[in-house]
Amino acid sequence: MAHKYVYTFGAGKAEGNKDMKLLLGGKGANLAEMSNLGIPVPPGFTISTEVCHIYDENKGQFPKEVEEQVLAGVHHIEEIMGAKFGDAENPLLVSVRSGAPASMPGMMDTVLNLGLNDETVLGIIKKSNNERFGWDSYRRFVQMYGDVVMGLKPESKEEEDPFEVIIEKVKKEKGVELDTELDAEDLKRLVKLFKEEIKKRTGKDFPTDPWDQLWGAIRAVFGSWNNPRAITYRKLNNIPSNWGTAVNVQAMVFGNMGDDCATGVAFTRDPATGEKIFYGEYLVNAQGEDVVAGIRTPQPLNKTTKTDPDQTTLEEIMPEAYKQLEEIRDKLEAHYKDMQDIEFTIQNGRLWMLQTRAGKRTAEAAVRIAVDMVEEGLIDKETAVMRVEPEQLDQLLHPTFDPKAEKKVIAKGLPASPGAATGRIVFHAEDAEEWAEKGEKVILVRIETSPEDIGGMNVAQGILTARGGMTSHAAVVARGMGKCCVAGCSALEIDYKKKTMTVDGAVYKEGDWISLDGSKGEVIEGKVPTVEPKLSGNFGKLMSWADEIRKLKIRTNADTPHDSEVARNFGAEGIGLCRTEHMFFEGDRIKAVREMILAEDEAGRRKALEKLLPYQRDDFYGIFKVMHDLPVTVRTLDPPLHEFLPHDEASQKEMAEEMGISVEEVKAKVEALAEFNPMLGHRGCRLGITYPEITEMQARAIIEAACQLTKEGIKVFPEIMIPLIGTKAELEHQKKVVVETAEKVMEEMGVKVDYLVGTMIEIPRAALTADRVAEAADFFSFGTNDLTQMTFGYSRDDAGKFLKEYEEKGILPDDPFQTLDQEGVGQLVEMGVKKGRSTRPDLKVGICGEHGGDPRSIDFCHRVGLDYVSCSPYRVPIARLAAAQAELRNRKK
Amino acid sequence: MAHKYVYTFGAGKAEGNKDMKLLLGGKGANLAEMSNLGIPVPPGFTISTEVCHIYDENKGQFPKEVEEQVLAGVHHIEEIMGAKFGDAENPLLVSVRSGAPASMPGMMDTVLNLGLNDETVLGIIKKSNNERFGWDSYRRFVQMYGDVVMGLKPESKEEEDPFEVIIEKVKKEKGVELDTELDAEDLKRLVKLFKEEIKKRTGKDFPTDPWDQLWGAIRAVFGSWNNPRAITYRKLNNIPSNWGTAVNVQAMVFGNMGDDCATGVAFTRDPATGEKIFYGEYLVNAQGEDVVAGIRTPQPLNKTTKTDPDQTTLEEIMPEAYKQLEEIRDKLEAHYKDMQDIEFTIQNGRLWMLQTRAGKRTAEAAVRIAVDMVEEGLIDKETAVMRVEPEQLDQLLHPTFDPKAEKKVIAKGLPASPGAATGRIVFHAEDAEEWAEKGEKVILVRIETSPEDIGGMNVAQGILTARGGMTSHAAVVARGMGKCCVAGCSALEIDYKKKTMTVDGAVYKEGDWISLDGSKGEVIEGKVPTVEPKLSGNFGKLMSWADEIRKLKIRTNADTPHDSEVARNFGAEGIGLCRTEHMFFEGDRIKAVREMILAEDEAGRRKALEKLLPYQRDDFYGIFKVMHDLPVTVRTLDPPLHEFLPHDEASQKEMAEEMGISVEEVKAKVEALAEFNPMLGHRGCRLGITYPEITEMQARAIIEAACQLTKEGIKVFPEIMIPLIGTKAELEHQKKVVVETAEKVMEEMGVKVDYLVGTMIEIPRAALTADRVAEAADFFSFGTNDLTQMTFGYSRDDAGKFLKEYEEKGILPDDPFQTLDQEGVGQLVEMGVKKGRSTRPDLKVGICGEHGGDPRSIDFCHRVGLDYVSCSPYRVPIARLAAAQAELRNRKK
Repeated sequence: MAHKYVYTFGAGKAEGNKDMKLLLGGKGANLAEMSNLGIPVPPGFTISTEVCHIYDENKGQFPKEVEEQVLAGVHHIEEIMGAKFGDAENPLLVSVRSGAPASMPGMMDTVLNLGLNDETVLGIIKKSNNERFGWDSYRRFVQMYGDVVMGLKPESKEEEDPFEVIIEKVKKEKGVELDTELDAEDLKRLVKLFKEEIKKRTGKDFPTDPWDQLWGAIRAVFGSWNNPRAITYRKLNNIPSNWGTAVNVQAMVFGNMGDDCATGVAFTRDPATGEKIFYGEYLVNAQGEDVVAGIRTPQPLNKTTKTDPDQTTLEEIMPEAYKQLEEIRDKLEAHYKDMQDIEFTIQNGRLWMLQTRAGKRTAEAAVRIAVDMVEEGLIDKETAVMRVEPEQLDQLLHPTFDPKAEKKVIAKGLPASPGAATGRIVFHAEDAEEWAEKGEKVILVRIETSPEDIGGMNVAQGILTARGGMTSHAAVVARGMGKCCVAGCSALEIDYKKKTMTVDGAVYKEGDWISLDGSKGEVIEGKVPTVEPKLSGNFGKLMSWADEIRKLKIRTNADTPHDSEVARNFGAEGIGLCRTEHMFFEGDRIKAVREMILAEDEAGRRKALEKLLPYQRDDFYGIFKVMHDLPVTVRTLDPPLHEFLPHDEASQKEMAEEMGISVEEVKAKVEALAEFNPMLGHRGCRLGITYPEITEMQARAIIEAACQLTKEGIKVFPEIMIPLIGTKAELEHQKKVVVETAEKVMEEMGVKVDYLVGTMIEIPRAALTADRVAEAADFFSFGTNDLTQMTFGYSRDDAGKFLKEYEEKGILPDDPFQTLDQEGVGQLVEMGVKKGRSTRPDLKVGICGEHGGDPRSIDFCHRVGLDYVSCSPYRVPIARLAAAQAELRNRKK
Repeated sequence: MAHKYVYTFGAGKAEGNKDMKLLLGGKGANLAEMSNLGIPVPPGFTISTEVCHIYDENKGQFPKEVEEQVLAGVHHIEEIMGAKFGDAENPLLVSVRSGAPASMPGMMDTVLNLGLNDETVLGIIKKSNNERFGWDSYRRFVQMYGDVVMGLKPESKEEEDPFEVIIEKVKKEKGVELDTELDAEDLKRLVKLFKEEIKKRTGKDFPTDPWDQLWGAIRAVFGSWNNPRAITYRKLNNIPSNWGTAVNVQAMVFGNMGDDCATGVAFTRDPATGEKIFYGEYLVNAQGEDVVAGIRTPQPLNKTTKTDPDQTTLEEIMPEAYKQLEEIRDKLEAHYKDMQDIEFTIQNGRLWMLQTRAGKRTAEAAVRIAVDMVEEGLIDKETAVMRVEPEQLDQLLHPTFDPKAEKKVIAKGLPASPGAATGRIVFHAEDAEEWAEKGEKVILVRIETSPEDIGGMNVAQGILTARGGMTSHAAVVARGMGKCCVAGCSALEIDYKKKTMTVDGAVYKEGDWISLDGSKGEVIEGKVPTVEPKLSGNFGKLMSWADEIRKLKIRTNADTPHDSEVARNFGAEGIGLCRTEHMFFEGDRIKAVREMILAEDEAGRRKALEKLLPYQRDDFYGIFKVMHDLPVTVRTLDPPLHEFLPHDEASQKEMAEEMGISVEEVKAKVEALAEFNPMLGHRGCRLGITYPEITEMQARAIIEAACQLTKEGIKVFPEIMIPLIGTKAELEHQKKVVVETAEKVMEEMGVKVDYLVGTMIEIPRAALTADRVAEAADFFSFGTNDLTQMTFGYSRDDAGKFLKEYEEKGILPDDPFQTLDQEGVGQLVEMGVKKGRSTRPDLKVGICGEHGGDPRSIDFCHRVGLDYVSCSPYRVPIARLAAAQAELRNRKK
């Protein structure tokens, strides 16, 4: 038997089902599933993702079986629909759509109304008894095919779409404003003009044979898997590039055949808030693209979601179809047990479902839906915990505008994606990327966004559009990114060429500051101060479920009592990294630090260190107090000493005056301490070994603070961490200094404190020899930032130059400083854990690099058996959820 | 039974033997062995090295059994000698000497004539019937005990020995010049003055009880294991610090009891040339120290080695004793099957052997003795190969003075250690170290050297002494170090205070240049040009035996045809590392390189690279030609581009003018390319990935040169090596560029060339993922310099600051840039080899870091199964020998 590449569906049955997403793509699998559920779906077939691979690898050649199977697929549709592809009397029209295993909305190509030519259009007119509809479908097809398959696109970002130019011209000649005012003759003329333009620009005739049209469209859709915006989207969403897309060929149903037709998209619950209301939009007498493209402003589905008395709901004008739709909604939710994003079309009063898939949602909605569904008995807690993307929580945790702040609201749009954002106006996605690279915060302002804008949207603080609804491209993508978005703000007049945005006569130029409130849909002039987020009860519930499940402890990286408090409120179970060097810069301390550096002997250094001691002790006192009853890991001094000296002339002069020495002496010291590769230089424990008195002072400050608090009845658990250990002997040296000091202090203060001495594992050699290092360590904390630097040989400060290129050229799948490189660096972490525990089974092991807050890295940390991860305060909830998911994911395996 | 700590020997039998060196030390084991062989040895006992450990760890406490066993040992001696320790009438005198498992000549302490006090001295006088001898022995004992046990030493390097000051004073008062002119009364007075000086300086009385003396001496000898010079010596010679020393207590025999007495040291063959002649020196009526201390110039043993008719040989004046000595020499060589270094004393015509041990020898001698002994049938080839210290060969391989050069010989001394050296005069070991640290080449000029000078001798190019013979401290140590030495050059008048050396009225100051010919004993004014060494037939034989044995191939690191030729002559079997960047600096090339760097686009870079192509091709042509029939590994461009730009204002200006651009443009480029940590920056394959056209040009140059030579009938095997690979994808990218270029060039030139594409393994991640990297590599070459940098996180350019301290504080046993860190870096190498071969069993694997020429690292490379090591041309023979030894050493295991 020939290998099966094509899977049919329709008329209550299908060859596929929802679990075949990798093979059929999400859309194809769900169309099959809906067919199987008896939900009305226009019949069709799916060409599997396997074909996409083969097509790519064989430079556009299909496996030989495909042609035959596509032919059979078309016959399958013809049979069910009682029409014939290419038949002049009773023509079948089809859509050709992409459908990847993961949702990539709008990233790949689609062709509708395929099968039309000068003959079949007449058949359609006859069948629909609607000449205007026939020609409108035809001109839409030519326009779409011309764009997608034949490549007729604007040649620069300033140029308008060539087809739109023609339409505008025809409308102007006729003296009308709206597309709907064009009649059949006009549309027929458009078809002709479009074909001429295509011929002129491409040199090719528009194909008249429907089969040629079909193969062209299939090729275009497969080819669109590797278009730049799809590649960017995959990267941003960690979708493997080897998945490929499937192609769905499906009978056309028409929402634009007359006023008893409509098309719409809906969510089974509110995707912004998660509320259990049926939420959607539709347009009468329109094709699906009209809704998502944001050209006409769609209407709400039902009375519940009506926000304006002028709106006309589907519930009101087509109650039958609406009722059926609501039933399908309930069926789908009950079946999929998740909020669904659906597309439908009503053709002459008959409802057709075109798509169902898990709906994208805001973090707030994700949390609420997950919790509600548990309470509704639809899913269990474990499923709920898996339902929320940890990274998405970020949008719940960041500040919103201070409600007390004065705000000059200049316009209102749709609250398309919640959150607050402040930035400078830019009008083009490319500009957004350029400005963001320079460190500018920008708001991307567009008439409407398109998939080409994805890069710019990603770097923007927020997105503002003049057109489009809650399900417009801008809104959907922004919610997915967890980025604030105000959409459909029609008060804006945007001039791309002048780079201005005019609201009620007030002109805002590129570079002007504005603020967006994505939860209210407000556009605000200038910058607005923000306040901390308050978390909902649902959030608390979900987090508590996550806490019940997870095995990893979550700590935080915090250097101040304030940060410690924020983190503790977010659920941090200790501090995994308290850096002491930041404390050295404040106020008068830097003077003492510099005095120490300039000292010529140990006595001089000790004198300066004595001045630092009380400051450090107070620092630790404050942090320990906030973190009472929880462990606090304090790292001894890490950076090279030259970081504490001024490097510009003026500051050197100032320092010289302040310290009563010559500027030459300052310069000489700066020069003496300069290093070729400071990252590999005299820092970390190497400093502590050269100047044990520094470690001694820090140990004293820590233990004095701990003793003081112990006396006050507050429980503290200091863990003193020696950085940059590469050999056991280094750790032994520093540990001796710490232990001797600690014992002395405890004797002086007459109090005992439970303290540990351990080390960062951030030098490859420390991981390689972890069995020996562990003999001297109470705990390990993987400093994966430095470990990544040295394992790859990448300086974090310099690698920007080539890392971006590496990602673009596919040499690295991710930035290894963001997501732990499990293949390489991860081996060292795993080795460190195993070897460390081989000589010290009770070794406490954690991670305190940036990776501690990255969900995929957390999954890895869970798998290799770490005790905790430590991350920045705002990422603590993300880490808690990611840790729970890691447990669930790996429990299943 | 009590644990045995003390082992007796003497009178034809012993409790130990030569194989118990670790327990009894070399001296003790060999004294036992000689006793067992029936060779006359003064009876005695050895306190084992075990006691040294316990003594160290228990802060000077001995195990309780030791006292009793020492007592028994003394009784053992008393019985054989028929004398009694501490007896006033018939006193037994003993020596107390150190004796570690490895020879550490002069590094630890010795006390002779122990047992003398105001009473027993009278007994000795009575027994010897020699009053002067009795008092001389006594004053020597007090002097030595005062120095060694009671610590009476000069307080600064300028101060003279306090005992010598007293002797000088007494001689002056008496108006005599030589010690021998002092009579019994004078010596008696010296004893008194010495004791007073000791009391004055230390506040302690000189001990009169022989048992107190004995325990004091034993403690001092054990304690001397950890004196600074012993520690330095152990470090230089890689002797483990946990071995400890044994203590030998032995009946005194006297070479200074009269003119029928003598003492001497000898080598069973000539230690300088290896010639099979009995070579030694002796002094009549002297104690052993007089010979080695270099105070009196000793006489040759026999007529064969007489160099001056005025010399008096032992063979002539004591023919009986000499004959017996010669018989013992033959017996020892036949027994030990190695050249022996022996010490003897003749007391009243009777010969006593005090020591035998494997003799230190020059490289030349080592080679000759090894080869001769094979030919004499004493040892086999494998043993011969193990007999020569690979590191020592260095002295055979370095240039000697050009015989045609004009040389102003200003003085002649003894040719104590061969080789040629040029450097600036310094007079103190400390100064030598200071100057050497600044990069100065120095010749250490001393009246005589002492063990305190060991550090300075180590850093000096050569050593020149005014006093002392071929077995003086300077001579012995210099030979061991493979360092050129002229000893006993009595024409020199050295003034330490003025820091001058006067020869025949000509004054040479500190800092003046002189040259030494260690093979001829010549001291030459100024610098002298050198010529390449010629290697003896024996060297060739030994090397050929090594070649038969070794499994490792030896390649060389060479960037020019000249270096390649030198290495090939030394036996290199290919080039393991040809760096291409050095080639970029020559002549006009640097202009083209800079043009490339400044180019704004690929076209500009290609234009500049085209100019470089012919140069590079010629480079490779030359090298490939010299290395015909052997593989040549060429590394593509490695350093960051900023290394090719000028960094000082003046050169930047010059460059700007040359290139017709503004100096600002040059500066801007320099700034744009600056990196925080260039070692971890944009270099190696990262450059080749950003600018594939550079790799392309280099691949073209390599393959064009190879094709050209192939056409000329010369076989070439280029191996193109991509540096700084961290991921398989990087290698694939660069390999593609190389292979595509190579195929193109071969097609253009109509010739096929066998070439390989492989990679450096120098990034930890590459070793960790070697299984994947190997899928794209024909070979691996471990770049252990960079691998060490990144595994330890040490910048080679900066680590000097703390690495020295690390070695001093015992945190690192060796400089990991000199000797491969097997525990850490070695793990990565081993992992790289195993993983690499797991996916590519035929993977060729080598090493091209500095470690490729280090014998201990070579042993490691052998054990982990590398195919070859690559080192600098002059180290090729060392590596050949070390590789053979590695095979033999590990074959035994």
